[in-house]
Amino acid sequence: MKSFLIVSLLALSNIAYSQTGDHSIKRYIKVPAGYLMVLRQGDSILVELEKLAVTEKIPAASFTGMGFVNITFGFFDFKTKKYNPKAFNEVELASMNGTLAWQKGKASIHAHGVVTDKNFQAFGGHILKGVVSTGSVEIIITLHDRPLERKFEEPLGANVLSLD
Amino acid sequence: MKSFLIVSLLALSNIAYSQTGDHSIKRYIKVPAGYLMVLRQGDSILVELEKLAVTEKIPAASFTGMGFVNITFGFFDFKTKKYNPKAFNEVELASMNGTLAWQKGKASIHAHGVVTDKNFQAFGGHILKGVVSTGSVEIIITLHDRPLERKFEEPLGANVLSLD
Amino acid sequence: MKSFLIVSLLALSNIAYSQTGDHSIKRYIKVPAGYLMVLRQGDSILVELEKLAVTEKIPAASFTGMGFVNITFGFFDFKTKKYNPKAFNEVELASMNGTLAWQKGKASIHAHGVVTDKNFQAFGGHILKGVVSTGSVEIIITLHDRPLERKFEEPLGANVLSLD
Repeated sequence: MKSFLIVSLLALSNIAYSQTGDHSIKRYIKVPAGYLMVLRQGDSILVELEKLAVTEKIPAASFTGMGFVNITFGFFDFKTKKYNPKAFNEVELASMNGTLAWQKGKASIHAHGVVTDKNFQAFGGHILKGVVSTGSVEIIITLHDRPLERKFEEPLGANVLSLD
Repeated sequence: MKSFLIVSLLALSNIAYSQTGDHSIKRYIKVPAGYLMVLRQGDSILVELEKLAVTEKIPAASFTGMGFVNITFGFFDFKTKKYNPKAFNEVELASMNGTLAWQKGKASIHAHGVVTDKNFQAFGGHILKGVVSTGSVEIIITLHDRPLERKFEEPLGANVLSLD
Repeated sequence: MKSFLIVSLLALSNIAYSQTGDHSIKRYIKVPAGYLMVLRQGDSILVELEKLAVTEKIPAASFTGMGFVNITFGFFDFKTKKYNPKAFNEVELASMNGTLAWQKGKASIHAHGVVTDKNFQAFGGHILKGVVSTGSVEIIITLHDRPLERKFEEPLGANVLSLD
């Protein structure tokens, strides 16, 4: 019944408009695999993916993407249990891979990226924040059909996508 | 007559032969998600994707891939409105992410890649040209079901995949 | 008939438990595109993908993924016909792209990856071995519907995914 409702809601709302930036431009459309998202200058990648999850009631998804961004990666320090952040601006997003799931009722995005600068050097890691720069970001979101939860696991000390 | 039959059979069987390199080897097959493409030494990645789009009348698609290449990346200079190019030869294509759409009646490929050299160092960016080197390039093309156009936008000064 | 059997077998066994690590935790589930795999600390990426192929009788597949790993890349030396290996430990797997096929009756995984270290520097190449470190690895496996074979080709001197 829940699945039926989700499918019905998806069918009713297969396009959407962003709540940031120019409201008159669609940020995503429904495609056979799930959704195709094109983000615009100033859009936050993680925020837009969270909004997509909530608006379209996505149970779970995997995604890949690319574009041009200002981005902050974080490398997790298991001693301090914190991410050491570093920002890279005006860089190509050469690749982005991630999953969309839920954690304690909130949409939870886990995304890794590789960026390349004007010298074509590559950097990357866990995406803490990514904002579209002078260009766009194109993302293909492949839908899964059952709700998936991200759970914090001890003694690992990290969130893991649960398949149970 | 024989040629006509062969062409007809090709049309019927949803497969295709490349017009470059060895003509007797299939470059792609139809798969549930769209197409699986395997390019051969000397094949141009962008040219083969454009030919796929035209031959199979693809409305739009997203793709990911990997392989072994000679490649030229370009970093866009917004002042000169030109791409500064740099070539990397005999490198692994560690990742490729992109989309296939149309612009003014022509197939338009937008692809980003990351390559790695014999020291495992990574470089990458916007792909201006990529040719298969000693090995192959494997690409999975995920089909979208509506025609999409890439449009040059001002004042951004860049092409953006339009969802309208 | 063969396809019917494969589909039937897939339907009968749409979840699976890993034979390494904690046996009580599912390593993958069936999703519309194919399978979603979440590997755990100590799991070998290539071994788990091979087990998936055998257990689920997968004809062929493409996959993408990301996570946190200890990994060994190899760069092929065409003179010695050997891979020069290099290990990177405790690194983010920023991207992984590959295909699953068969070679002489055995599952054959071809995967390229990009990893990033605590300084966000990127390295990568052909994956010889990858083991999940303190975290997980998430992989989306997109199924193809016909059995594909990887064949060693001369004079190229490399394995190529055959579409014939």
